[in-house]
Amino acid sequence: MQQMKPCIAVLGAGNGAHAFAGDLAQRGCTVRLYNKFAHEIADLQSSGGVILEGVLEGFGQLDLVTTDIAPVVSEADIILVVVPANAHAFMAQACAPHLRDGQVILLNPGRTGGALEFKSMLRRQGTSARVFIAEAQTLLYTCRLSGPARVRVSSVKREVTLAALPARDTSQVLKKLGLLYPQFVAAADVLETGLDNIGAMFHPTGLVMNTGRIEAGVTFEFYQDMTPGMVRLIEAIDMERLAVANAFGVQAVSAFDWLARSYDNIQGATLIERIHSNAAYRGIPAPRTLNSRYVLEDVPTGLVPIVALGQLAGVEMPASVGLVNICCALYRRDFWQEGRNATRMGVAGLSIDEAKVIIREEGSVAALLEEGGISMVDETN
Amino acid sequence: MQQMKPCIAVLGAGNGAHAFAGDLAQRGCTVRLYNKFAHEIADLQSSGGVILEGVLEGFGQLDLVTTDIAPVVSEADIILVVVPANAHAFMAQACAPHLRDGQVILLNPGRTGGALEFKSMLRRQGTSARVFIAEAQTLLYTCRLSGPARVRVSSVKREVTLAALPARDTSQVLKKLGLLYPQFVAAADVLETGLDNIGAMFHPTGLVMNTGRIEAGVTFEFYQDMTPGMVRLIEAIDMERLAVANAFGVQAVSAFDWLARSYDNIQGATLIERIHSNAAYRGIPAPRTLNSRYVLEDVPTGLVPIVALGQLAGVEMPASVGLVNICCALYRRDFWQEGRNATRMGVAGLSIDEAKVIIREEGSVAALLEEGGISMVDETN
Repeated sequence: MQQMKPCIAVLGAGNGAHAFAGDLAQRGCTVRLYNKFAHEIADLQSSGGVILEGVLEGFGQLDLVTTDIAPVVSEADIILVVVPANAHAFMAQACAPHLRDGQVILLNPGRTGGALEFKSMLRRQGTSARVFIAEAQTLLYTCRLSGPARVRVSSVKREVTLAALPARDTSQVLKKLGLLYPQFVAAADVLETGLDNIGAMFHPTGLVMNTGRIEAGVTFEFYQDMTPGMVRLIEAIDMERLAVANAFGVQAVSAFDWLARSYDNIQGATLIERIHSNAAYRGIPAPRTLNSRYVLEDVPTGLVPIVALGQLAGVEMPASVGLVNICCALYRRDFWQEGRNATRMGVAGLSIDEAKVIIREEGSVAALLEEGGISMVDETN
Repeated sequence: MQQMKPCIAVLGAGNGAHAFAGDLAQRGCTVRLYNKFAHEIADLQSSGGVILEGVLEGFGQLDLVTTDIAPVVSEADIILVVVPANAHAFMAQACAPHLRDGQVILLNPGRTGGALEFKSMLRRQGTSARVFIAEAQTLLYTCRLSGPARVRVSSVKREVTLAALPARDTSQVLKKLGLLYPQFVAAADVLETGLDNIGAMFHPTGLVMNTGRIEAGVTFEFYQDMTPGMVRLIEAIDMERLAVANAFGVQAVSAFDWLARSYDNIQGATLIERIHSNAAYRGIPAPRTLNSRYVLEDVPTGLVPIVALGQLAGVEMPASVGLVNICCALYRRDFWQEGRNATRMGVAGLSIDEAKVIIREEGSVAALLEEGGISMVDETN
């Protein structure tokens, strides 16, 4: 059975957004791209599309590239949010007035608590549209911008887990995405996609414990130059993260195991040995400035929501709390307030069981639409 | 009026202990020196005393140098404890069985909560002797071991504040020490001597924020290479320390002001400028290993008791708590337990007003001895 290709909104204009937009357009979808900043899409506007190179090759013609979100979102069947996680709340606000029943919103990736924050923000905006909200565990493409309106895709992952919020909607979301992306498979829920945030373990630690060196302008390798003390802190916050997952009954993967699952030829009986054995980490420089996503994204959308979930579950998290507190002082910012705290994730004041209901069952769009007799997007197309 | 020189116990065998012992012996006091480790006093035992050089010159003959604390403490009028602050609890335990009424114990220096911990430990040991306990704000001598049984004294401070516990006994302690050390002057109480712990502001911060560099064996200067981010953390914990002092009604000095008071030719309108302008800081290397007093002393006897006092006073201290938590993970040690927490300082469960009474009034030895008609040490000599 042949189906019409869906209409896709891509929100964002970075590496991943270029890859999604170019790939889908080349495969025949109608792709409209929105970005907040005009200068980041000027090249796309003048070229009219994305040049793909690497494991994907060709040119994907875009239907619209704009800083006006209304026509991008309102026409879309599927809305791919491909921005740093600390921009998710902004994107939810920007989308809210233009959403309509049955649309699918997918965060690529959600980091920790992405779907929770997105949904909570839509609710605060008074959105009445019944949309599916889901988050991917990681970005599908390994890619980097390689020129104006040009992206080099070095790999497309074989498998990426995805969960809807609530988890009851995951199968429906997978059905809607399946024709385009068979790589997406179901995670148990958004805690499973969200709690395996390994970047939040490595990145802030590496930055805080090298502040003197980074600010002095001394170059070094981020992973190869990791030392035993740094890795002891990583292990401490990693154990706290696993304890949170355990409290919610979610299977999370340790940084130690994750390395062996994610990369080839990982060796070593300790985390530091495994980090140092990873050929893919060689040559990755440390940030040259504190103004880095290693803290500015990974603290508010990684450590903060992990701690917020832990507090809800009654898990003690001294190392993670300590690391966030240090970052607050180091940046003179209140990451506890601006990050994904319990309020922003819509779980403030809930018991762990109440949170589980929100995460797994409550407010299922699939259930609502079925009850209301509203037909599904993929059935109308 | 001529008085007999008092009998002095010096506990410890480091830089400061050599200086105290040599100086006092040379000035005619009977000086007995105790140290836990035999290898650290072998040179003193074979030479029979301390060679002084620098601003003090000569030879101070010691009456006894031993690893047996009994004859050192039991004969002493004044007991000078000159060890790293994390050894104070051990010294209290070791002293306890040999103390007698009217002796003066002076911690040089106390760091934060030294006298509180020492007194609390004596109480737990069941000591019945009514001894004066006091702490100096800093070490009187600027000195360094310069050879076997030899110490170079580069300066003797003009003024060092001192407080007894309770503060009601301070004048009595000053009277007993005054003939030997007119440099000692009264602080309001042990919070005033204890809370101006500037080392606890600089040292752990500099170590944590340079962990990667220190463990990599990269040499750099501890103070001159301080960067803006590091100093933001120092400022955050310094503000928290000042808030604790303020809650107790104690006048504490900021790191910013302390630099100008403690060193010559300090310039700059910001803390980092003042640090960088300090000629005395130039050339001081960073620790070459994490196994450094910069954490191992300054966290358990600096940050931990400052936070414990702050919690008692209801002061929020996220940066200080965070820094201790990070050190716990980095060293895999529970500094909250092994350090000077409220229990070890004998103030657990107290209100701030109850703590003030303990610090300023309660258990005055001067009052007790007077009431009991027991004569003073300096009157029997």
